[in-house]
Amino acid sequence: MSSQIPAIVSNRVSDAAKETIDIVAKFVEEECIPADPVLEAQVGEGDGRWETHPPIIEDLKAKARKLGLWNMFLPKGHYAESPGWTNLEYGLMAEWLGRSRSASEACNCSAPDTGNMEVLAKYGNAAQKEQWLKPLMDGKIRSAFLMTEPDIASSDATNIQLDIRREGDEYVLNGSKWWSSGAGDPRCKIYIVMGKSDANNKDPYRQQSVILVPSETKGITIHRMLRVYGYDDAPHGHGQITFKNVRVPVANMVLGEGRGFEIIQGRLGPGRIHHAMRSIGAAERALDWMLMRVNDERKKPFGKALREHGVILEWIAKSRIEIDAARLVVLNAAIKMDEQGPKKALKEIAEAKVLIPQTALTVIDRAVQSFGGAGVSQDTPLASMWAGIRTLRLADGPDEVHLQQMGRNENRRGKKVAEHILWQQKRTAELMKAHGVEQVEPGSRIQRSRL
Amino acid sequence: MSSQIPAIVSNRVSDAAKETIDIVAKFVEEECIPADPVLEAQVGEGDGRWETHPPIIEDLKAKARKLGLWNMFLPKGHYAESPGWTNLEYGLMAEWLGRSRSASEACNCSAPDTGNMEVLAKYGNAAQKEQWLKPLMDGKIRSAFLMTEPDIASSDATNIQLDIRREGDEYVLNGSKWWSSGAGDPRCKIYIVMGKSDANNKDPYRQQSVILVPSETKGITIHRMLRVYGYDDAPHGHGQITFKNVRVPVANMVLGEGRGFEIIQGRLGPGRIHHAMRSIGAAERALDWMLMRVNDERKKPFGKALREHGVILEWIAKSRIEIDAARLVVLNAAIKMDEQGPKKALKEIAEAKVLIPQTALTVIDRAVQSFGGAGVSQDTPLASMWAGIRTLRLADGPDEVHLQQMGRNENRRGKKVAEHILWQQKRTAELMKAHGVEQVEPGSRIQRSRL
Amino acid sequence: MSSQIPAIVSNRVSDAAKETIDIVAKFVEEECIPADPVLEAQVGEGDGRWETHPPIIEDLKAKARKLGLWNMFLPKGHYAESPGWTNLEYGLMAEWLGRSRSASEACNCSAPDTGNMEVLAKYGNAAQKEQWLKPLMDGKIRSAFLMTEPDIASSDATNIQLDIRREGDEYVLNGSKWWSSGAGDPRCKIYIVMGKSDANNKDPYRQQSVILVPSETKGITIHRMLRVYGYDDAPHGHGQITFKNVRVPVANMVLGEGRGFEIIQGRLGPGRIHHAMRSIGAAERALDWMLMRVNDERKKPFGKALREHGVILEWIAKSRIEIDAARLVVLNAAIKMDEQGPKKALKEIAEAKVLIPQTALTVIDRAVQSFGGAGVSQDTPLASMWAGIRTLRLADGPDEVHLQQMGRNENRRGKKVAEHILWQQKRTAELMKAHGVEQVEPGSRIQRSRL
Amino acid sequence: MSSQIPAIVSNRVSDAAKETIDIVAKFVEEECIPADPVLEAQVGEGDGRWETHPPIIEDLKAKARKLGLWNMFLPKGHYAESPGWTNLEYGLMAEWLGRSRSASEACNCSAPDTGNMEVLAKYGNAAQKEQWLKPLMDGKIRSAFLMTEPDIASSDATNIQLDIRREGDEYVLNGSKWWSSGAGDPRCKIYIVMGKSDANNKDPYRQQSVILVPSETKGITIHRMLRVYGYDDAPHGHGQITFKNVRVPVANMVLGEGRGFEIIQGRLGPGRIHHAMRSIGAAERALDWMLMRVNDERKKPFGKALREHGVILEWIAKSRIEIDAARLVVLNAAIKMDEQGPKKALKEIAEAKVLIPQTALTVIDRAVQSFGGAGVSQDTPLASMWAGIRTLRLADGPDEVHLQQMGRNENRRGKKVAEHILWQQKRTAELMKAHGVEQVEPGSRIQRSRL
Repeated sequence: MSSQIPAIVSNRVSDAAKETIDIVAKFVEEECIPADPVLEAQVGEGDGRWETHPPIIEDLKAKARKLGLWNMFLPKGHYAESPGWTNLEYGLMAEWLGRSRSASEACNCSAPDTGNMEVLAKYGNAAQKEQWLKPLMDGKIRSAFLMTEPDIASSDATNIQLDIRREGDEYVLNGSKWWSSGAGDPRCKIYIVMGKSDANNKDPYRQQSVILVPSETKGITIHRMLRVYGYDDAPHGHGQITFKNVRVPVANMVLGEGRGFEIIQGRLGPGRIHHAMRSIGAAERALDWMLMRVNDERKKPFGKALREHGVILEWIAKSRIEIDAARLVVLNAAIKMDEQGPKKALKEIAEAKVLIPQTALTVIDRAVQSFGGAGVSQDTPLASMWAGIRTLRLADGPDEVHLQQMGRNENRRGKKVAEHILWQQKRTAELMKAHGVEQVEPGSRIQRSRL
Repeated sequence: MSSQIPAIVSNRVSDAAKETIDIVAKFVEEECIPADPVLEAQVGEGDGRWETHPPIIEDLKAKARKLGLWNMFLPKGHYAESPGWTNLEYGLMAEWLGRSRSASEACNCSAPDTGNMEVLAKYGNAAQKEQWLKPLMDGKIRSAFLMTEPDIASSDATNIQLDIRREGDEYVLNGSKWWSSGAGDPRCKIYIVMGKSDANNKDPYRQQSVILVPSETKGITIHRMLRVYGYDDAPHGHGQITFKNVRVPVANMVLGEGRGFEIIQGRLGPGRIHHAMRSIGAAERALDWMLMRVNDERKKPFGKALREHGVILEWIAKSRIEIDAARLVVLNAAIKMDEQGPKKALKEIAEAKVLIPQTALTVIDRAVQSFGGAGVSQDTPLASMWAGIRTLRLADGPDEVHLQQMGRNENRRGKKVAEHILWQQKRTAELMKAHGVEQVEPGSRIQRSRL
Repeated sequence: MSSQIPAIVSNRVSDAAKETIDIVAKFVEEECIPADPVLEAQVGEGDGRWETHPPIIEDLKAKARKLGLWNMFLPKGHYAESPGWTNLEYGLMAEWLGRSRSASEACNCSAPDTGNMEVLAKYGNAAQKEQWLKPLMDGKIRSAFLMTEPDIASSDATNIQLDIRREGDEYVLNGSKWWSSGAGDPRCKIYIVMGKSDANNKDPYRQQSVILVPSETKGITIHRMLRVYGYDDAPHGHGQITFKNVRVPVANMVLGEGRGFEIIQGRLGPGRIHHAMRSIGAAERALDWMLMRVNDERKKPFGKALREHGVILEWIAKSRIEIDAARLVVLNAAIKMDEQGPKKALKEIAEAKVLIPQTALTVIDRAVQSFGGAGVSQDTPLASMWAGIRTLRLADGPDEVHLQQMGRNENRRGKKVAEHILWQQKRTAELMKAHGVEQVEPGSRIQRSRL
Repeated sequence: MSSQIPAIVSNRVSDAAKETIDIVAKFVEEECIPADPVLEAQVGEGDGRWETHPPIIEDLKAKARKLGLWNMFLPKGHYAESPGWTNLEYGLMAEWLGRSRSASEACNCSAPDTGNMEVLAKYGNAAQKEQWLKPLMDGKIRSAFLMTEPDIASSDATNIQLDIRREGDEYVLNGSKWWSSGAGDPRCKIYIVMGKSDANNKDPYRQQSVILVPSETKGITIHRMLRVYGYDDAPHGHGQITFKNVRVPVANMVLGEGRGFEIIQGRLGPGRIHHAMRSIGAAERALDWMLMRVNDERKKPFGKALREHGVILEWIAKSRIEIDAARLVVLNAAIKMDEQGPKKALKEIAEAKVLIPQTALTVIDRAVQSFGGAGVSQDTPLASMWAGIRTLRLADGPDEVHLQQMGRNENRRGKKVAEHILWQQKRTAELMKAHGVEQVEPGSRIQRSRL
């Protein structure tokens, strides 16, 4: 709730945002979280899982719209329909959304639709917006972003192979994609596809294009859904899809041929903040569950409630510290993005991208451990939250790729720093001389006394 | 293979065992691992998952018997049918079994049957052996051990509540169990049940009994199977089961009323070694997969194969060190058990119990990370291995319970150590005097010079 | 410099503070750091180390005063002489001071004088201020705070034993103290001493008093100085001191008998922020040195500069993330203290107290490792910075005491959280019923099909 | 004591060795440890520290010889004077030596003399042995090994620059060395020096030579001693030394020009085992001290002795596990070296080299933390043990260099493993076909049902 906003940012959050945060919190805690198992039950079993649209989601969406909780993610000033929240303000809302499986979708703020809507809003032309952005913003359809491919190292997007070839008034697409999240949903009507339209371009960052492909276009085959640990995440799902001579009109190209990198880079900043803040919310919920467990009067191993065990108290305290530190890192990135734009905030966003999933996983794993068997099972939200967040250490590039890049960036000042330290050492030598002293070194008189 | 046996134990492994280890290794690598996905496919989908007995398992069992790989777990000298391996020797075989999902069952060495067979062999009477041990040893039926309960802190077994009441020639059982692993299998015919037969006994370790209950006895309800990070582990499964006025003849009592603790304690030692060595095998297989991934010529992010990235090389090296260290800890416990029996080896077994799952999880998680998306999915064995081993940090008591107990045990020598150090300090004082010197303390002459 | 202030706080830092931060940064980098080895050389060797006042310190103090850098720590509005900086603003300055050994003293902002001046400013009477606060604020004398005792567990201050007994117009002190930091300095003229004046008071938090004792009072013996790893920190030092019938006038009592806890609690908040921010500065300097090392063209193991080694780049990146996260935690605590006072900021201050030393130690140790042998030696500032910060995990209570307390505090909401989750689960049950669905549980139909 | 030898190796330790281990243990615990502070006191203060030979060392040496504890390190069969212990057996003795500062020297088993004696014994000619090995083995003189240089990345020994040029019947040496451990001792009479005698040799491993240089040869300057976290380790010390036209007869060359690498490689294996086992001993002693502290009845924070705090018990338990695992790793390496020689044991030795210092540092740091302020001071042996062992993560190459090499070695089987897994997958496909099943993939029927 707004009363829990860290002191460090409270003066940047408008009163309207604070009110909305309170509404979001109440909606999530009282409507969405109780609805999550209902949603799961409505998804059901077997092949039907991929054909359902759980009715309770539409109930929640109706309630959310009534409460004014709709499309909150759209950045301030970014688009006419934007409710006008800053990244900071929406970030604080997203934390609450992250506590529930259904909440983001209920408020039309769920990935990958949010990023896709941003792409269409920022880079789409009027016709593209009319056809796809409108129903997306209205929650009528869903979308997927098809970038990662099974046969290459996708963390380096220049490797992407899906072929986009122009033939007259059409583009013809051939290739394979996987981890196409959301492609399982029967309401997923539009794919935003990254592919290679100009493989011979000397600039490796001008070879790619992004193009719109309706999901029911001929030549598209959904082969299967990838599991995340044992979860299939139906009906959303993570699809493996092939394109065989899939044809779309040239009008479906976004922004223009060769501008794919530009588009995906513009898409990443806010999405990373959203993911990170939702993960913070998940970690907070895991901590809540851990508190519930350690106060369970029925479960006292060796005669003491878990809350009296020193190791557990330390877990709780460390979780509190780590979550709070991680949240500040995300909010700092959000504010920098708000004030100076995503490009200037690259470092801060990368810090959040790496730090937050690891923090959340650590906290959730402690909660799992405190629950014993129940922790790994379907009886707590912990195991599935853990699995979901585990993918964030891989999605949009594994931690290690980001760390290498951050290390290189940090080292840009290496040469200057080295020169500065040498200057300081020279200055020390001058001062030594001026003060008539020498550095005291142990054993420096050995020679004189012995040889 | 036998050529990889650590130098430290090689002289304790008989030539016959070395030969058998080579046979096991070949059987697992060439028969069982390729069969694992077939098994999974034969288990199929939907409710049928709980009714199948995948035919390929029987193929593997036949092959295993032919190769002489059957019931290798039964400790040397422990039972007539024992193949006569030491815990050390079987441990080295179990490492290979742990690389495959199907291998342990193929050799009739899978949990919980192994522990249950040991209970029957050690504590069962002739009739109990004839009825249940024989078909178990013959691989005709399977079994479950019902101990953990949903409403209590089961890590402290004195909390167990299932009521066992004698009525004439029968015992009547009432209560709930969960994490009854193996109860899902249609071939699971016998439950070994721990319950409370004498709640008022002053000795909390004499209140429990262990009793045999055929799985199809009236009054038993299987409510559901618990998931492990989304996996249901069908058809094996982890059942939640209630007993409502379940009646069995008094002849089903094992060893006698009130001897439950004695029985479960006798059951734990070897089982922990088996689990630990299988986990070592899983970790080795994860490392193999990581090596495969980092040598994949198709997947070169930023132009370098993963094997050329320093961070990855460090992961490989650390995994090697950690696995090797963990293995030695288990083998040391096995040898101590072989030589001095499980009671004398409590410390060594506890060390393995705590260390090995954490080591294996770390190694597997690195492998997951090196694979990117494929790592968390069904395309590698990594995610499901991770989930399975994650439960070992909880099964038979969470790590923390064992660590507290180990800490207390280690501290039994605390008082004596403290006295010894004080004696040393007294001796130092005497020596100082004898040598006419004093401890050099910085600033000890401040007083003289200043006040 | 002010340009590096995190976005999240930049709008709370006044322009005047930003200017001053830039002046501090320049002063530290260009004057203090080059002077640090000179200071060390002037301290010299042998017993003389405890009698020196290195002349370069007075040079630096003169320069600092000229630049307006004097007593910046004194909180806004707290005292007439305060320069008026907020805790946030001074915190950002303290980060720079923490990069140099001499900088804090040069600006009259060094521990324990800062905390002692606060005690005198907040709790001293006019005469006490005139006699001790004035020369302290003028940098004429130094001071020590004598609390920790060698024979008790001082992390629990109720254990403190030094006896303060009233006899007529005097208090008589008897007892032992150690870790009396600063007591080695020949300019240390005043001890602020915590002792027990009313051991029989039923309220264990009213038994203690704080009293002023001139360091040259009869009956005081400085026995020695404690080393920190191999460093004696002369002339500052960490003294072990006994009091034998030490008499001071009753007018030396601070605030009144029995008010010792009140005083030490008021003293801790800002001090912890200062220590934390100085440690951040030390960590930044360690990172600078690591950057220097990895760009050293003369030192290329295996033909590659260290900056090209992936593991090193990851260290740099992780250090960047961890320092930035840690800094935000301290600044958040500073802001909360600025806005709501130290009592409301207890949680935030405790988070900083625990997190920052561990972060700084990790970063510095990486830098040590990157330097090889030079890292542990006198040739870099790293080893001595590490040793100094290592004590912060113990000073004012070891991490573990704070974590236990934080765990307990966090768990105050445990009962309420547990009730809330139970309410959510009840609500889920109602929704399930209303929607006519049931939770999908694997194996829940086993019973029907088999028995 | 011999009763604590791990079960896994007990059958390889001869009865004679067990008896000797007991004698070593008693000697260390009752003679050496009490003597350590006396030694420190006899070393004294100021420049005199580098001129002393503490008399108590000669007392201890006399006692050790009388007990038959002399030169135990000399490997079995390696040399006529060898007492005949295996590396395993001496390793178990070295663990006890590692608990005391003085014990190794008391038994003439201290670094770098041990390695230097091995060099002379294995590679020296008769005259070299007569002149230097004999007095070394007799404990009459000490020695240093001069390899590391200040201006290069010495972890890669091909970088070594010290120039060795032949002029007639002499070699002329020019260059700089540092971390010349032991060079501070007034009894250090001989330097074994590694330098470059043939910089143009195409084989970078044939450019170096090892040559004997008496420490008092003209042209040698000891500039200073390097500190290790503030400790100068006098009189032993770690010297920085320059050679200016230092001339020695050609007879001082060891083994022949260009054979330096061969010599240093032969020197490393046993030395690493010794260091590792001594570190295990240090860790055990740290654990003993921690046990003493947590049972201190005078020091009960918050009314409970530390031994009742769960976090502390967990530290004790983890320390027990980690030490025991680490010891097995070293002993396994020792056995492999005993049986197959150091070259075959490269992997095992490297594992010990990396694992043991990190383990010991972790254990010691926990002990420091449990002591509070005393832990970092001169009042426990902990801080100085920590500093000493910290250098082992750097000496003979930093951990990271070893990990990279180990990763590369492990990956030598990468290609074969990858092929094997592909073979398994092909075999699975055949089995799938033979059994008429297909892999169950979630969502694989989406296409059929929807498009």
